[in-house]
Amino acid sequence: MMTKMIGFTGGTLDRGDALRHDAIGLAAAKADPRARLLVLDGYTPAYDGDRLAWTALPQDGSELALLGLDRDGVPHFATITGERAKGRSFDLIAALHDLAPGEAATYAGARSLLDWHARHGFCANCGSATAPFRAGWGRACSACGTEHFPRVDPVVIMIAEHDGRALLGRQPAFPPGRYSALAGFLEPGESVEEAVAREIGEEAGIAVTDVRYVASQPWPFPSSLMIACTARALDDRITLDTNELEDAIWVSRDEVRAVLAGEKGPFRAPPAYAIAHTLLSVWADATSAKP
Amino acid sequence: MMTKMIGFTGGTLDRGDALRHDAIGLAAAKADPRARLLVLDGYTPAYDGDRLAWTALPQDGSELALLGLDRDGVPHFATITGERAKGRSFDLIAALHDLAPGEAATYAGARSLLDWHARHGFCANCGSATAPFRAGWGRACSACGTEHFPRVDPVVIMIAEHDGRALLGRQPAFPPGRYSALAGFLEPGESVEEAVAREIGEEAGIAVTDVRYVASQPWPFPSSLMIACTARALDDRITLDTNELEDAIWVSRDEVRAVLAGEKGPFRAPPAYAIAHTLLSVWADATSAKP
Repeated sequence: MMTKMIGFTGGTLDRGDALRHDAIGLAAAKADPRARLLVLDGYTPAYDGDRLAWTALPQDGSELALLGLDRDGVPHFATITGERAKGRSFDLIAALHDLAPGEAATYAGARSLLDWHARHGFCANCGSATAPFRAGWGRACSACGTEHFPRVDPVVIMIAEHDGRALLGRQPAFPPGRYSALAGFLEPGESVEEAVAREIGEEAGIAVTDVRYVASQPWPFPSSLMIACTARALDDRITLDTNELEDAIWVSRDEVRAVLAGEKGPFRAPPAYAIAHTLLSVWADATSAKP
Repeated sequence: MMTKMIGFTGGTLDRGDALRHDAIGLAAAKADPRARLLVLDGYTPAYDGDRLAWTALPQDGSELALLGLDRDGVPHFATITGERAKGRSFDLIAALHDLAPGEAATYAGARSLLDWHARHGFCANCGSATAPFRAGWGRACSACGTEHFPRVDPVVIMIAEHDGRALLGRQPAFPPGRYSALAGFLEPGESVEEAVAREIGEEAGIAVTDVRYVASQPWPFPSSLMIACTARALDDRITLDTNELEDAIWVSRDEVRAVLAGEKGPFRAPPAYAIAHTLLSVWADATSAKP
């Protein structure tokens, strides 16, 4: 069903789950002279042509996270520094997407994992300091024994359709002219379908039905899972939640196709690496939902 | 596409997001003489016929979480006690599913939220104590100012199909004879589709393609989002990860249909409130995937 490129997907490293539970194997991987370390200046990667740049492993006892193994079994690591990621940089993201396929995915996974470590140095259960375990895929508390694992926050992002038109919204922080799919965090106790309906109701005052999954994407700012859907709106009267959106509009398939083709239209499209772009593209290529 | 009942979905309360940001409105909701409090003994609900039991709001300054508003605008709350949820009880879950539609969903959301509070009394960023805010939908640290929000952990759960048969696995903790869909936590830096492929590869040594979303379900033990998918297996030779599974088998549509109909078969089905049951049922009703 989905054949379009989706940003931050297509990583080529095998995550090497078994090594996370194998102290001897992990030590051997760290001692492997082929082992590679992701080069980062803070959270900014270095490049080697159209690939991420890697270097030899440090021999200074730095805490390392195992990112995975390449096709030749070469282990790839990143350093857990405790340093926090700064906000997303659109320049950085655009640069990543000029790299070879899968490179942005490798960076995204590393960025989310390292930033999680930086924001979770203490035990939420008892307040004591925690330390990495499982090759950097968890942190354990030596005081109360609680094990913590990297957080992934599911976010629903969706287009409601009414009479052949799609509902798009504009957040105040967007660049001028940009509109995108509505989105929001999924909460405890709800399904994807329920979260989609709730968010469209909250942000635009519109009831929907027929929620359909389209695609998903990791979004490393800091650690979201974007779940893209379409839904059928029961009417087109918008009641805007002005705390979330400064505007919302209905756009036709022809208008979306034109904008995605780079022509002038009633809005500027989200960038290609965002799943909102994929979602708009899939929606524009589809025939209208049955009423 | 999905018309089958899915466990823990269908809650009827409006979550009242606007009230979480409206101190005056929230105070008025708490003072509303119609306001209701979920009756819990630890995490065990009380029942009023085929509904959850509710009582009047305590006037003792207890920390309350706003569960939502019913169709008449009556606010519904639960008490944040700091008490931890004990393990899941299959008796409890089965009892919930004999209730009126949506009641299990209301309980599931409350349970995940209250248990999150109990496990997150301290700031992961600095180790200081945190306190609830946003009507119980977050905790804030007064020392470093970090805001924390309830965690939802996405889990992929999936059936790989090969030559008209589905791959099912058995965990050592399952009741005798039970087999179910394989499952695992989605990790930072991967899409739903990538997590499905990775987990089937890790647990059964099988490569898959054509991952398709089927349905989703909140699973409040403690706070998972189950994302159910199918995939097409490239071969049927199983290499079992015995740390995860004690057995894996291929079953035909006829066998699955018979088992779901209560007839004898090569395995015992997962319970009706688990999305694995929904997934098996959807798969058994479908025609085979194209090779």
